[in-house]
Amino acid sequence: MEITWQPNPQSPIPLYQQISTYCRQQIQQGNWLVGEKLPAQRQLAQQFGVNRSTIVTALNDLQADGVLISAHGNGTRVASNTWSLALDWHHYLDGQFNANLPTIQTINRLENENYLRLSTGELAPELFPQKLVQAKLRAITPQVTQLNYLEPLGALNLRQALVKRLQHWQIDVQPENILITSGSLQALELISVALLKPGATIYTEAATYLNSLQVFQSAAATLTGIPQDDAGLCYWQLPASTTTQQLLYTIPSFQNPTGSVMTQQRRHDLLQFAEKHQLPIIEDTAYQDLWLETPPPLPLKALDRAGNVLYLGTISKVLAPGLRLGWIVGPTAVIRRLSDVKMQTDYGASSLAQQLLAALLADSAYDDYLTELRQQLRQRRDAALASLKDYLADVATWQVPRGGFYIWLKLKPTINMEQLFQAALKRHILFNPGSIYGADHALRLSFAYASPAAFRRGIAELAELIKRA
Amino acid sequence: MEITWQPNPQSPIPLYQQISTYCRQQIQQGNWLVGEKLPAQRQLAQQFGVNRSTIVTALNDLQADGVLISAHGNGTRVASNTWSLALDWHHYLDGQFNANLPTIQTINRLENENYLRLSTGELAPELFPQKLVQAKLRAITPQVTQLNYLEPLGALNLRQALVKRLQHWQIDVQPENILITSGSLQALELISVALLKPGATIYTEAATYLNSLQVFQSAAATLTGIPQDDAGLCYWQLPASTTTQQLLYTIPSFQNPTGSVMTQQRRHDLLQFAEKHQLPIIEDTAYQDLWLETPPPLPLKALDRAGNVLYLGTISKVLAPGLRLGWIVGPTAVIRRLSDVKMQTDYGASSLAQQLLAALLADSAYDDYLTELRQQLRQRRDAALASLKDYLADVATWQVPRGGFYIWLKLKPTINMEQLFQAALKRHILFNPGSIYGADHALRLSFAYASPAAFRRGIAELAELIKRA
Repeated sequence: MEITWQPNPQSPIPLYQQISTYCRQQIQQGNWLVGEKLPAQRQLAQQFGVNRSTIVTALNDLQADGVLISAHGNGTRVASNTWSLALDWHHYLDGQFNANLPTIQTINRLENENYLRLSTGELAPELFPQKLVQAKLRAITPQVTQLNYLEPLGALNLRQALVKRLQHWQIDVQPENILITSGSLQALELISVALLKPGATIYTEAATYLNSLQVFQSAAATLTGIPQDDAGLCYWQLPASTTTQQLLYTIPSFQNPTGSVMTQQRRHDLLQFAEKHQLPIIEDTAYQDLWLETPPPLPLKALDRAGNVLYLGTISKVLAPGLRLGWIVGPTAVIRRLSDVKMQTDYGASSLAQQLLAALLADSAYDDYLTELRQQLRQRRDAALASLKDYLADVATWQVPRGGFYIWLKLKPTINMEQLFQAALKRHILFNPGSIYGADHALRLSFAYASPAAFRRGIAELAELIKRA
Repeated sequence: MEITWQPNPQSPIPLYQQISTYCRQQIQQGNWLVGEKLPAQRQLAQQFGVNRSTIVTALNDLQADGVLISAHGNGTRVASNTWSLALDWHHYLDGQFNANLPTIQTINRLENENYLRLSTGELAPELFPQKLVQAKLRAITPQVTQLNYLEPLGALNLRQALVKRLQHWQIDVQPENILITSGSLQALELISVALLKPGATIYTEAATYLNSLQVFQSAAATLTGIPQDDAGLCYWQLPASTTTQQLLYTIPSFQNPTGSVMTQQRRHDLLQFAEKHQLPIIEDTAYQDLWLETPPPLPLKALDRAGNVLYLGTISKVLAPGLRLGWIVGPTAVIRRLSDVKMQTDYGASSLAQQLLAALLADSAYDDYLTELRQQLRQRRDAALASLKDYLADVATWQVPRGGFYIWLKLKPTINMEQLFQAALKRHILFNPGSIYGADHALRLSFAYASPAAFRRGIAELAELIKRA
């Protein structure tokens, strides 16, 4: 129950009465649900900006009318709605799509408040190439002569620009092999509802970004983790094919959250296995361009002779998540099916964002930006590793990431991660515990968001919290 | 099977061989599926830009290798993939989300080609306020200092601008009652998966936009049409409440496709009924601002004392569908649930589009645009009505729309609508037959897209086709 409204002291209506009227409205409009608990009186006084005695008067008023009930020692709650007309929405808050994990709901909520964010999966605002993007915005502005619906697959000039950029990775496709999506997350959502029947199995790396989502589970699919060794996913541990649908989801380059890279040889072997067993692969390449010293091996899609691979790309990690643009590259029959469902769920991605991105990708200044960005990220990574060495060397281990955003910290099993997460929250520090990716005794750190100094301070505080516990 | 590639006559490789290599690639990459039929030789020759004899040589080559099979009198098809490595994607093209109706797939495909579009549900490009939008784009460009993820509910300044505009319609809400969506279509998609369990029933006007979508059916809900009279939906014909979830979807102002308007009295009565029967209402207001002479009655949400109404707004019809922005207004508990699912399916709407729209809605120049737009639409409507009177008065009837885009044409039952649709296609004329909205012997016309002259020409051609048949 969030209260952002305050009574008006200039009004001739007494404050307590303004407050009780407000509360009635909240309940009638369905904002406060039956049975919901009100904050403590002290907190209410603070939120409404009034004395506690005013709150007591207002609550007494509402209790007298049966709008609220007070259970001794159990706070004040919204009474059942026999007195009111309010629709009971409880029956409608539990549809087919699963709720986010509580930890992720907390992170989503607090990321927009004033927390030190040690794990955030986006670039720091100061890394954003303002001049480049603003120049391109100015360049496309005269071309904004309409903003109507686009072709079902997305803007042709954007798909053409992507065809060229995919060639750098030795992927040879046509514009009709590409569907523009509202970010990679939507690509996964489309795959889950357009391609899968209930009961499908999605294989993943054991610790994976996919575990932090509910998109496949909500489509009645099951996620099954497969171990990794130093070379990448141990594909030979995949079960023999079954009668149900199966897909493999993998992030071969700079995996989220572990940062690992699948070797060239393992990529070849995995593809051969997939061809033999008719196993479709979703290749998520979100971090592929963010190599720090040398480029990763060629993507699976570049080696894909049999059309097994659906390749997911996105601009969210490399440049700007707020554009909400990603792309799926695959066989035209699959792209058409995904496009048909996209047309039925959001009718395409924002055309303004697509025009801006097409202009950016067609300009070599974008490559200069990438070069500069890699250098910045390299410095941030090195600073982050130094901070870890200084503060956490005795309680944690990690690998040096060769690209992407993340350092995957493995902590001593004696450390209680849930307590650490809560203790950090109290100090206004946010991090992503490994549990949301399917791994205990680990946490994901990002060197891309917090400044090196802030990152260092956060790590020092985490070390202190660990030592205290 | 679309072919956009052509062989290179300058290459030392013979044309037939380039073509057969291309065909092999298409099959290996999964673009052409097993069993798929190739176009006729004459058509192939045209598409590849070569002589028919070259096609014959290439096809013979591929048949000799078992890549293609030719069934006498039944064309040439892609052979089963025993010879190849290609993954058989057929098992993955039939997921949980229903395919679009074939007629709508046709319309979606042809709308981006050179057809006369008599029914298109968007404003003509020439009605777009270029100067206003470009000026606002220039104004926000210096503020684009980052494009990171936004708050889960959408940009606060956009929600604040909407709060003010909703007050014009006597709707009194806070920013936390609003979720920004990627268009109204996504609002429906979110409602279907976040609020509904399988087996829910959605009541609608008998002929409704919703029938042209698969969004609720794909979530295992059933659509049930309720008759309308002159005052609007006959709510008393709604069945008594059942144990399953029920929702009413309505477009009270300038309904799509019929153009009808629910009276003020009927709105009051419907709401009273909904309160009594605990029936949630989805109020779609896409066309509400597009009144031509006088504003429609207050929206249901303005009269909603009990939180029954989820109000859907969008900028797609009034200004620019390419922005892909809509909004849901409702009780905070419902908004939070919808937002949680939105965060899990596309992580928010495009922030650039949101910034642009916030700037537009906060400017009184936007109201001047609306005033001018209404005048333009009024002229277009009157011209359209004159064309109908001149050409179709003896075979069709219609009401004069008081707002929105559409004229709902009821045709004599002797006219075969499917034949008319196909005959019009041959003349490169596209219209939306009533069947996609759940009504026979009717079609939806739009006076918002085709110019009055083009509309007149199209209607004259339709009249001719009807008379011939």
